[in-house]
Amino acid sequence: MIHVDLNADLGEGYGAYTICNEEELIPLLTSANIACGFHAGDPNIMRKVTQLCADNEVGIGVHPGFPDLLGFGRRFMQCKDEELENYLYYQIGALEAFAKMAGKRIQHCNAHGAWGNWHEKDPEYARKFVGALAKYDKNIIVKAISGGYRQQIAKEMGLRVASEFFADRQINNNGRLVPRSIPGSVIHDKDMIVERVLRAVIKREATSFEGVDIPVQVDTITIHGDTEGSIEIIRSIREALLKNGVVITKMEDFI
Amino acid sequence: MIHVDLNADLGEGYGAYTICNEEELIPLLTSANIACGFHAGDPNIMRKVTQLCADNEVGIGVHPGFPDLLGFGRRFMQCKDEELENYLYYQIGALEAFAKMAGKRIQHCNAHGAWGNWHEKDPEYARKFVGALAKYDKNIIVKAISGGYRQQIAKEMGLRVASEFFADRQINNNGRLVPRSIPGSVIHDKDMIVERVLRAVIKREATSFEGVDIPVQVDTITIHGDTEGSIEIIRSIREALLKNGVVITKMEDFI
Amino acid sequence: MIHVDLNADLGEGYGAYTICNEEELIPLLTSANIACGFHAGDPNIMRKVTQLCADNEVGIGVHPGFPDLLGFGRRFMQCKDEELENYLYYQIGALEAFAKMAGKRIQHCNAHGAWGNWHEKDPEYARKFVGALAKYDKNIIVKAISGGYRQQIAKEMGLRVASEFFADRQINNNGRLVPRSIPGSVIHDKDMIVERVLRAVIKREATSFEGVDIPVQVDTITIHGDTEGSIEIIRSIREALLKNGVVITKMEDFI
Amino acid sequence: MIHVDLNADLGEGYGAYTICNEEELIPLLTSANIACGFHAGDPNIMRKVTQLCADNEVGIGVHPGFPDLLGFGRRFMQCKDEELENYLYYQIGALEAFAKMAGKRIQHCNAHGAWGNWHEKDPEYARKFVGALAKYDKNIIVKAISGGYRQQIAKEMGLRVASEFFADRQINNNGRLVPRSIPGSVIHDKDMIVERVLRAVIKREATSFEGVDIPVQVDTITIHGDTEGSIEIIRSIREALLKNGVVITKMEDFI
Repeated sequence: MIHVDLNADLGEGYGAYTICNEEELIPLLTSANIACGFHAGDPNIMRKVTQLCADNEVGIGVHPGFPDLLGFGRRFMQCKDEELENYLYYQIGALEAFAKMAGKRIQHCNAHGAWGNWHEKDPEYARKFVGALAKYDKNIIVKAISGGYRQQIAKEMGLRVASEFFADRQINNNGRLVPRSIPGSVIHDKDMIVERVLRAVIKREATSFEGVDIPVQVDTITIHGDTEGSIEIIRSIREALLKNGVVITKMEDFI
Repeated sequence: MIHVDLNADLGEGYGAYTICNEEELIPLLTSANIACGFHAGDPNIMRKVTQLCADNEVGIGVHPGFPDLLGFGRRFMQCKDEELENYLYYQIGALEAFAKMAGKRIQHCNAHGAWGNWHEKDPEYARKFVGALAKYDKNIIVKAISGGYRQQIAKEMGLRVASEFFADRQINNNGRLVPRSIPGSVIHDKDMIVERVLRAVIKREATSFEGVDIPVQVDTITIHGDTEGSIEIIRSIREALLKNGVVITKMEDFI
Repeated sequence: MIHVDLNADLGEGYGAYTICNEEELIPLLTSANIACGFHAGDPNIMRKVTQLCADNEVGIGVHPGFPDLLGFGRRFMQCKDEELENYLYYQIGALEAFAKMAGKRIQHCNAHGAWGNWHEKDPEYARKFVGALAKYDKNIIVKAISGGYRQQIAKEMGLRVASEFFADRQINNNGRLVPRSIPGSVIHDKDMIVERVLRAVIKREATSFEGVDIPVQVDTITIHGDTEGSIEIIRSIREALLKNGVVITKMEDFI
Repeated sequence: MIHVDLNADLGEGYGAYTICNEEELIPLLTSANIACGFHAGDPNIMRKVTQLCADNEVGIGVHPGFPDLLGFGRRFMQCKDEELENYLYYQIGALEAFAKMAGKRIQHCNAHGAWGNWHEKDPEYARKFVGALAKYDKNIIVKAISGGYRQQIAKEMGLRVASEFFADRQINNNGRLVPRSIPGSVIHDKDMIVERVLRAVIKREATSFEGVDIPVQVDTITIHGDTEGSIEIIRSIREALLKNGVVITKMEDFI
C-alpha cells in the first residue's frame, strides 16, 4: 500500500494581512508548514492555524524563516551560525507553545524561502541546520526536497526524513527545483499537475525540465494554497490519489 | 529558617544593544525575568542568558511584554484578550526552547512594563493573564507584587505565587509601588536599601511612602541590574541577608 | 458649480502582502491617503503608489499611523506628545521623498485608525496633531470628518480643511461615525450608498443613524477600496456625480 | 590653509537603547551621520540628534542602512536594486523632515554597515547607490572612503565628494579598510591615532597595514563615539589639528 502526505505552507499572513483561506485549505491537507513570526505569521495566526490543524488531524510543522517580514524571508541574509541556530530554536519554541495548547507536538520541520534554498546550495549550511534541529529534538521529521543535501544529511544524522515533491514545479535532472525566475518552471495546468503527482507517487518517477525521466522519492506532495484555483487543484490531486488506492495520511503515520 | 529569592530583569538588550552586564549580574541572583523579543530581547540574547542562568543555578522566568520594542513595552496598548493570550504563549514557548537547550524548565512568570502594571489597575486584566498561564502550565510560579490583584487571583486559581518586594522602590499604604514619576519614589541610598530589604525579609514589614508601617510578604527581592552601582548594591544586600542567617535560593526551592 | 474630491486609503500592503488593487483603483480617485510604513506600507509600495497617483493627477496625502504593523494601527497606544509629533514628521518626510521623486508635493494629511479616532474623542489630542502639522507645513490640507474636533481646530489654526463624508458609513446626529462594531453601521447596498453620497454632495444633508436629517459638509467622499464590489461602487458614485453636474477633482483644486 | 571635517555615526540608539552620549559628542564634531530607523535610530532620537546638530552647526548627514535592526545593518541582505533605491529615499525623506524642523538641509550621505561595505566590493552596487542619490538631489555630498569605488563613481557623476579617513582603522596598500576581524586592524593607542590623523591631514599620507607609505585624500576624519575613551581621543585630535593651524569645519564649507 502506498502512503503519501499532502503539505502546504500555512499561517503566512500577518496582523490584518491574509495570504490564503486556511479554513478551506486545512481539511484537504495532512501536514502544514507553519510560519512562526519571522518572515510571516504572528501569535494569533499561529494559534488559529495550529488549532485548525489539530481539529483536522493535520500534522503540525515548523517553518522557520529569516527575520525579514519585509522581504517575506525570500532574501538571503548573511547570518552567523549561532544566529541561525537561535532563530531556529526561537521559532520552534513559539510554535510548540501553540501545538501544546492544541494538544499536539511538532511533527516536522523545513526551512522557508532563502534559508531553505541555501541548504541545497551549500551542504555545510544544511548540516548546521539539521544538526541544530537534532540537538533540539531527534523526533522531529525533516522535510526536504527529494535528492537534496538536507535530506541526505538528515539521514546520515539518523533523523527521519520526508522527501518532498512539488506538485506544480519543474525539476532539473538532479532533482532540484528549476528556479521560479525561469519561464515554464511553474506548472499551471491542472491535468498536468495531477498526472505528474500520480506518476511520482505510484511509479516514483518524473520527467525533468530537460525531458529526462528521473527517479523521485515521494513521501509528501507540496502544494501551494495561495494561488488561484489551488483549492480545485488540491481536490483533484486527492481524488486521483484515492481512486488509485493511495492512502493519504500525515507523514508521521508512515515515516 | 527564612528563605528569600533575588530576582532581576535580564536579557533586555536587542541585537547590538545591551542594557546590563549579565555575566557579572547572574551569579549574584537566584531568579531571572527574561525578555522574549517583544519589548526587548532577541534569540541570541535569550540563548546566552538562559545558559548563564542554567550554569549558575538561577531560576529561569518568562517576562512577556507588549509587542512594542520601540516603546520598551512601557506604553499601554489596547489589545484584545485573545491577542494577549497568544502573545503570552508565543513568548513562553520561545523561552522554553532555550530553557530546554540549557537542560531546564521555566520556573516563573511575571508581566513586563505596561502589561504588568495594568494587572494591578484592573483585576479582570490580571485574571485573564493568570488564567491563560494556568491553561498553559499550572507548575509555573506567578511572580507578583505583594498584596496586588495578580497575586490574589493566582492564589485563588491554585497557582504557586512568589510575592515580590522591590529593593529600591517606595510603596504606598496599600503596598503598591509609588509611580516612578513621583519624586523620591526610587531609593538610591545603598544603606537605606539594604536596611529596608533586611527589615522586609526578616520582620515582614516596611514603612510606606506616607510614613506608615505596613506588613509585606516577601518571597523574592526585585533588584535592578541596569542602574549605576547596582552590582555593589546587590552585593551588599546579599551580605546583609547571609549575615542574618537568611537562605538565598531560587523561588522554586521553597515555594 | 459643486466640486468634490474622492479619496481612499492606499498603499496599505506590506512586503509580500497586498490589500487592494491600486492600479485599478487610483484612476477612479482624486486623492489618496498613503500609509507610510508604521501601521502599513513600505518603501516599495510607497514609491509605486505615489508614482501612480502622480501619473493619474491624484492628490498625494500622508496617512500616518501608530508604530504597530501587527495591529494595523487600529489599537490605541499610550504615546507621549513628543513621540506622536516625531512619528508624524518621520512619516511625512518619508512620503515627501517619494512625492518628490514623482514630481509632486504632499497635498493633505489625516491620521489613520486609532490615532485618528482619538482626535474625535479628545480635542487636546487633535490640537497637538494639527499643531505639529502646522509647525511643519501650513500648506498641507487637513482632511477631517465633517463636524469633528480636528476640523474645527485646524480651521482655528488657519489651516485649510477638507471635510470628509464616508460613502458607506452611518453617522450619528452629531455627525460622528457610528462605530463599526454596531450592526448596520456599514452600508453595503450600492444604490443606497450612491443616493446618500449624491444627497450629501448636492443638498449638504444626510439622514443620521437615529433617523434625523442633519447638515453635512462635504469636500471629499471617503471610499473603501478593499471591500468586495468596491470598484463597482466607486464607478457608480462617479457616474451619478458627473450626471448631476458635480465636478470631481482633487481637493487642492477647490479648497 | 587646510580644512578638515570631523564626522561620527550618531543617533544609533533605538527606543530605550542608547549607544553614545550625543550631548557630549556633537559639540566636538563638524558633521554627523545619522541613522534613520532601519538598522538603528528612531523618530525621537532623530529629532533630538538633528536639533543638537543644528544647535552646534554640525552638518546633518543621512546614514541609510539595511532594514535589519536585529543585525544593526551589519549583515548583507540580498535586496533588489529598486528595493535599495526605495530604502534610500525613505530614509533620506524621514531625516529631511527633522532637518527641516531644525531649520537645516541634509548636507551629506554615506551608507551604513554591510550596505556601504558592498559598495567597495562591487562597483555596480556603488553606481546604483550614487545614481539613486543623484536622481534625488545632486547637492548632497557623497561621503566615501578615500580611493574607493563610491568616491570615484560619485565624481564621475558630477557629485561633490568628501573623502574619509578613519582615525582608528588600519588601511591596506589600496587604501581600503583592513577588516575589523583581523587582529590589529583597529588602533587603540591615542597618541598613535593623533599622530596618524595629523600626518594624513597635513601631509596627505599614511603608512598602510603592510608598512608602505601611501597617499590619502582627507576631507573628513571619521571618529567613533561609542568606544571607551573616544571623547578623550576626539579632544586630542581637535587640539593637535588646531595647534597645527588646520581649520576644523563642516564639509560643505569647503567642498
